[in-house]
Amino acid sequence: MREISIVGAGMTRFAKMPERDVIDLGREACIKAIKSSGVPRKDIQIAYCGTARTGQLLNRECGVGQTILLDIGISGIPVTSVGNFCASGSSALREAYLAIASGMYDVALAIGVEKLSVRRGKGLPLTSDGVTLLTALGFSPPAYFAEIATRHMYEFGTTEKQMALVTVKNRGHSRYNPNCQYQTSVTVEEVLASRPIVDPLRMLNCCPTTDGAGAILLCAKDLAWKYTDKPVDIIASSLHFGLYEKNKDMTTFNSDRASGKEAYEMAGLGPEDIDVAEVHDCFSIAEILHYEDLGFCPRGEGGPFVEQGKADIGGEVAINPSGGLLSRGHPLGGTGLAQTTEIFWQLRGEADKRQVPGARVGMTHTMGGFQDSIELADVASSCIHIYRQGW
Amino acid sequence: MREISIVGAGMTRFAKMPERDVIDLGREACIKAIKSSGVPRKDIQIAYCGTARTGQLLNRECGVGQTILLDIGISGIPVTSVGNFCASGSSALREAYLAIASGMYDVALAIGVEKLSVRRGKGLPLTSDGVTLLTALGFSPPAYFAEIATRHMYEFGTTEKQMALVTVKNRGHSRYNPNCQYQTSVTVEEVLASRPIVDPLRMLNCCPTTDGAGAILLCAKDLAWKYTDKPVDIIASSLHFGLYEKNKDMTTFNSDRASGKEAYEMAGLGPEDIDVAEVHDCFSIAEILHYEDLGFCPRGEGGPFVEQGKADIGGEVAINPSGGLLSRGHPLGGTGLAQTTEIFWQLRGEADKRQVPGARVGMTHTMGGFQDSIELADVASSCIHIYRQGW
Repeated sequence: MREISIVGAGMTRFAKMPERDVIDLGREACIKAIKSSGVPRKDIQIAYCGTARTGQLLNRECGVGQTILLDIGISGIPVTSVGNFCASGSSALREAYLAIASGMYDVALAIGVEKLSVRRGKGLPLTSDGVTLLTALGFSPPAYFAEIATRHMYEFGTTEKQMALVTVKNRGHSRYNPNCQYQTSVTVEEVLASRPIVDPLRMLNCCPTTDGAGAILLCAKDLAWKYTDKPVDIIASSLHFGLYEKNKDMTTFNSDRASGKEAYEMAGLGPEDIDVAEVHDCFSIAEILHYEDLGFCPRGEGGPFVEQGKADIGGEVAINPSGGLLSRGHPLGGTGLAQTTEIFWQLRGEADKRQVPGARVGMTHTMGGFQDSIELADVASSCIHIYRQGW
Repeated sequence: MREISIVGAGMTRFAKMPERDVIDLGREACIKAIKSSGVPRKDIQIAYCGTARTGQLLNRECGVGQTILLDIGISGIPVTSVGNFCASGSSALREAYLAIASGMYDVALAIGVEKLSVRRGKGLPLTSDGVTLLTALGFSPPAYFAEIATRHMYEFGTTEKQMALVTVKNRGHSRYNPNCQYQTSVTVEEVLASRPIVDPLRMLNCCPTTDGAGAILLCAKDLAWKYTDKPVDIIASSLHFGLYEKNKDMTTFNSDRASGKEAYEMAGLGPEDIDVAEVHDCFSIAEILHYEDLGFCPRGEGGPFVEQGKADIGGEVAINPSGGLLSRGHPLGGTGLAQTTEIFWQLRGEADKRQVPGARVGMTHTMGGFQDSIELADVASSCIHIYRQGW
C-alpha cells in the first residue's frame, strides 16, 4: 500500500461556544491546518468532513463540509460527509487516508466538527446518536459506563480512587493545553466529592459538553517533503464495529481488541512500541478498559496501571497528554482530529510543557456506538491510527 | 489503480411505504445484492451506508448501516455512514470503490437508503438537506429547477413539449420496471395538463416522493471470477462539488461538466461510447441539462435531442431505461444504488423488456446539492461512475 504522511494539523479551542456555529469552527481548524502545512489550497484534491449529529442543529444534513470549504475558498473537488458516532472525525481521517492509498488522490483534507452546547429539543438527553428508546427512558451514556464500572470493580477489584486517578492524570496534563475546555488540575478528593451522576460515576469522571473542530492535511509520503521536513506518517488505520453483548462480558470492548490487533499488525508494532496515545476517555472507566483492550496492560489490571503511574508522561506509555476528553471535552466529530492533532504535535516535539520526551510512535483511539433498543445490545465502532515520525 | 468489479446488486421496490422503516428496506436490498452475487457474508470486509436525511426520522444519525448489517448477521467489519445530498448512495459506492482500490480490502458492500414518505415536521418543505432559510421562504427544489427551465427556454428555445417528452420517455420505460413507484405511460398532453407546481414545471415534470433502498457488492476484479462469470467493471468514478453561481449561467452545472470530464478521462472513453446511462432526472429539465453537460449533445440542444428520440432505447444513448427518478421516485440515498443496479442488469442483459440491445458500456450520474442562504449561491455535487462488461 501507498505510504501516507500528515503534513498539517489544526484545531479550535474546545469549549462551550454558543456564539459560534459549526461552519465557523470548522473554518478555523482548516485554516490552522493549512497554514501549519505549507500546502497551497489549490493542491488539496479531496476532502471529508466528520460529524455525528450536527446536521440536526444546522437544519442541514450533509452540507457542513462543503460550506466550510466554500468559506475558505475551496470548491471543485470531491467533498463527502462521514458519520460514525463519536468516531466520526477519525472516520473522516480514515476515508482521506484510503482515498490517497487508492492512488486516485495525492493530497487530502479531513475535517471533524461538532457543536454540543446547543440542543435541538429542550430537555432531550444528549447522546452521540440522537435519542433512542433506551436513552429516552433514562439509559444514557453515563448510565451505560456506570454499569461497566460496577462490573469492572466487581470482577477485578478496581477502585473509585483508581478511576479518579485517570481524571487527576488527564486534568493534570490539561494545565499545559490551552485548547482544553478545563485547564486546571483536580485532586482525587475533588473527584470523589464531585456531584454524583450515576453511581459509581461522579461529575469529574465524565467528559464535559463541548463545541470544537479539528482538521488534518495528509498526502502521499513521497510528496510530503514538498511541504514539510517533519511529516508524521500514518502507519496503521483500522476500524471495527462490533456487537457488544452485555450479558456476555461488560468489561471489554471486542471492537477495541479487534481494531487494536489489526492496527498493530499493520504497523508491525506492539503496544510496547507506543510512546504516546490519545485514547477515548469519555468516562474515566473507559480509559481503564482501553489500557487493557489495547494491550498496554493485562486484562483486569487497568486500575493498578494508572495508580502506578504507568500511563503518565514519563511512564510506560503516556496516555492522553493533551488532557483527553475529560479535560478537552468531547464534541463527537471534533474529537478524533483533535487527538490526531495532539499526536502530530507530540511526534514533532511541538507539545510545549506537556511534551512526551522522546516520543517517536503515537496512537489515536476513538470509540463510538449506540444502544440498539431492538436487539438490546450495544454496538461500538473503534477507530485506531498509529503514527511514526516520518523523517 | 486496482481494477474493481461489481458482482451483485439489489434493490427494493421504490414506493411510498409508510409501514416499512429504513432498516427493513436496507436489509431487503442487501439480501438481494448478496444473493445475486454468490458472495458468502463472511467474505464482506467493509461496508458503507449512504443516507442524506434519514437520521432525523430514525432519531439516529449514524447507525443506519450498522443496524442493517447486524440485522443480516454481519459485524466485526468497518462500517461508515456517508452523506452527500441526493448523491449519498453514489458516494457510498465511491467510498467502497476507493477502499478496495487502496488495497486494504478486497470485498465491499455499499448500501443506499432513504425514507421520504414520513416527514419530521408537519408542513415543512421537503428538501434533500433539511430546511434552509431559502426553502422555508418557499424557494424549494421545484422553484429552483423552474428558474433553470425558464432560462433554458429563453436561451435555447427549449419547449414545454420537449420537457414533457422526457417524462413521456421515462414513464414509457417504467412500464417494464416493477421496481418503479409509477409503472404507467403518460402522454405529452397529460404532462402539459397536470397540476402546475412552479411555472413552467407541472406535476409530471417532477419526481415523486418515495421510500427505497439499493445495495451493491463489489470486489477486486481479480477475485470477481470466484463469484460470477458476469462481473461488471467500474472503469471510472468521479465526484465534484462546485459552486453554481446563478447570476453567471443557470443553464449548466459546472460540477456535472467537471465530473463528466474526469470520468471520461479515467475510463479512456467519450460520451459517444456510452450505450446506456441512468442520469439524475429529478425534474425533466434536469435531464435535458445533463444531456448537454455530460456531452451527449451540444449546449442548448438537449430539447431537440429528446424530441428526435436520440435518448430512447435504440437511440444514440439510452437514457434512463429504468424509468428514471421521474418514474421510480427519488429517495435521496436510495437513488444512486438503484441507478447502479439498473446498469448492472443492463450490462448483464438481465433488464427484461426494457433491455437496451447490445449495451456494453454504462454510466450512472447522480447530482445533489443545497442552497446556501448565506452565499446566495447553489452548491452541487455530481457523482459519476462508468461501467463496462467485465467478461
